[in-house]
Amino acid sequence: MTVVGLGPMGAALADALLAHGHPTTVWNRSPHRAEPLVTRGARRADTITEAVAASPLVVVCLKDYEAMYAVLDPAADALSGRLVVNHSSGTPEEARAAASWADGHSVGYLDGAIMVPVPAVGRPDAVLLYSGPEPLFTAHRAALESLGGATYLGADPSLAVLYNTALLGMMYASLNGFLHAAALVGTAGVSVESFAGIALDWFLPSVIGTILRSEVPQIDARTYPGDAGSMEMNLTALDHIVRTSAEQGVDVDFPAALRTLAERAIAEGYAANNYSVMIEVFRKQRAAVS
Amino acid sequence: MTVVGLGPMGAALADALLAHGHPTTVWNRSPHRAEPLVTRGARRADTITEAVAASPLVVVCLKDYEAMYAVLDPAADALSGRLVVNHSSGTPEEARAAASWADGHSVGYLDGAIMVPVPAVGRPDAVLLYSGPEPLFTAHRAALESLGGATYLGADPSLAVLYNTALLGMMYASLNGFLHAAALVGTAGVSVESFAGIALDWFLPSVIGTILRSEVPQIDARTYPGDAGSMEMNLTALDHIVRTSAEQGVDVDFPAALRTLAERAIAEGYAANNYSVMIEVFRKQRAAVS
Repeated sequence: MTVVGLGPMGAALADALLAHGHPTTVWNRSPHRAEPLVTRGARRADTITEAVAASPLVVVCLKDYEAMYAVLDPAADALSGRLVVNHSSGTPEEARAAASWADGHSVGYLDGAIMVPVPAVGRPDAVLLYSGPEPLFTAHRAALESLGGATYLGADPSLAVLYNTALLGMMYASLNGFLHAAALVGTAGVSVESFAGIALDWFLPSVIGTILRSEVPQIDARTYPGDAGSMEMNLTALDHIVRTSAEQGVDVDFPAALRTLAERAIAEGYAANNYSVMIEVFRKQRAAVS
Repeated sequence: MTVVGLGPMGAALADALLAHGHPTTVWNRSPHRAEPLVTRGARRADTITEAVAASPLVVVCLKDYEAMYAVLDPAADALSGRLVVNHSSGTPEEARAAASWADGHSVGYLDGAIMVPVPAVGRPDAVLLYSGPEPLFTAHRAALESLGGATYLGADPSLAVLYNTALLGMMYASLNGFLHAAALVGTAGVSVESFAGIALDWFLPSVIGTILRSEVPQIDARTYPGDAGSMEMNLTALDHIVRTSAEQGVDVDFPAALRTLAERAIAEGYAANNYSVMIEVFRKQRAAVS
């Protein structure tokens, strides 16, 4: 295998391949980054062309797609017939454009997203997501499993970055939810540790996770009966959260933004539906984007 | 025990007491609501005064604090020396006012919040939160444990409604996060069931929960080193989520609201801190509230 790009994440990928006994060639624009890996058994390529020629599978871990083109374009001929697995960050359109670029050079292409921090790379419980042609994933699955648990998402090359972005957005929403809640109970002198004993050890996995899980079939069926409480009731609850935040002297902008979304759902005719109907609101784009 | 208010939740509380063998008196403004409970062994009181006189512990489950005063004020003399455990919804100020009202009538007062849906009441894994004088909670703990797992939060009577409101806000934030993410991957034809297999079965409990848990000591210490990624890096990620949402044609308002909060944190001087520093932003109130 070849690993191109030896920042902390790229170096972790190379180490995971070495740990699983794969002959591994490495390349980085600043060659000194390769030195610790050479000590651990990697072979350093002097040029990018030499690097990609060394292996049928080229793992790329660069800052973004622009950096990927800058590095790989000069070596496109040497890449022909090989597989590029790209872990750079980008948008779905960038992923599809990269797949087209690879196709134009007779290069196989999988797009990947590493969903765990650097220290977890190489562990079987690490989650790495891949998208692109299934035969390419199947043929190289064993090598990719050296990097962590490899999950195949589908043939559309944009799926890995799309999942990655969606999960990140979900994370920020939940982080804000917890931190705002901790600020709110903090007004009564409750420590975050004490609040976390209920909010994180019980409420997040057992209540929020369970509620969402139970609604999934209804969401996929696009039916949202008000059996779990109507959007009108949810608006009352959200209004209560805004007023309590105001009464306690903490930020009201975040709960007010959640309330505004519920108001929009009601304005769009979803007053009697379950809260999950918010996905129908989210499926439409309203505002102009900066 | 006496249960006042026999809506679905109040009736479930009465049933839980009966199931644990407690002699139980019930009262409701519309008396027919008591009939099924009488069949199961409850005693129906004809007046609220008779109802509160029947037991040392009076469990109240009415719509709000206003309804509680309307029902209990005429029976205040009979309540003297007894304990009211109030499960009505309200704000922290309303809970503190209710405790003062009870104190003025020589009535013991605990405020409660039932954190589970009606069918879960009475099960040991149900979570019910209580706040008020600890000796009152301790003296009546055995009876309260009949209603579910009873968690004591502290002497400030507002704690139960404050926790309840904070956890609800956390829930709405997380629900929106998941639903927006599901809308985003849905643009590539991914079913919610398929996304939930990663987002709910793994990401929510194992990544979001774990990240938050690991940051709790730093949050309580109010130190937020940038070791988990600076707020500047988080702003870049949030901007990426906004642009990807725009590119995919789904709602941008929700991720843009999250981005605005990160921008506010940076404007307040937290550019180099971990994301958890958002709690410092949330501790301040900025906007006027409608």
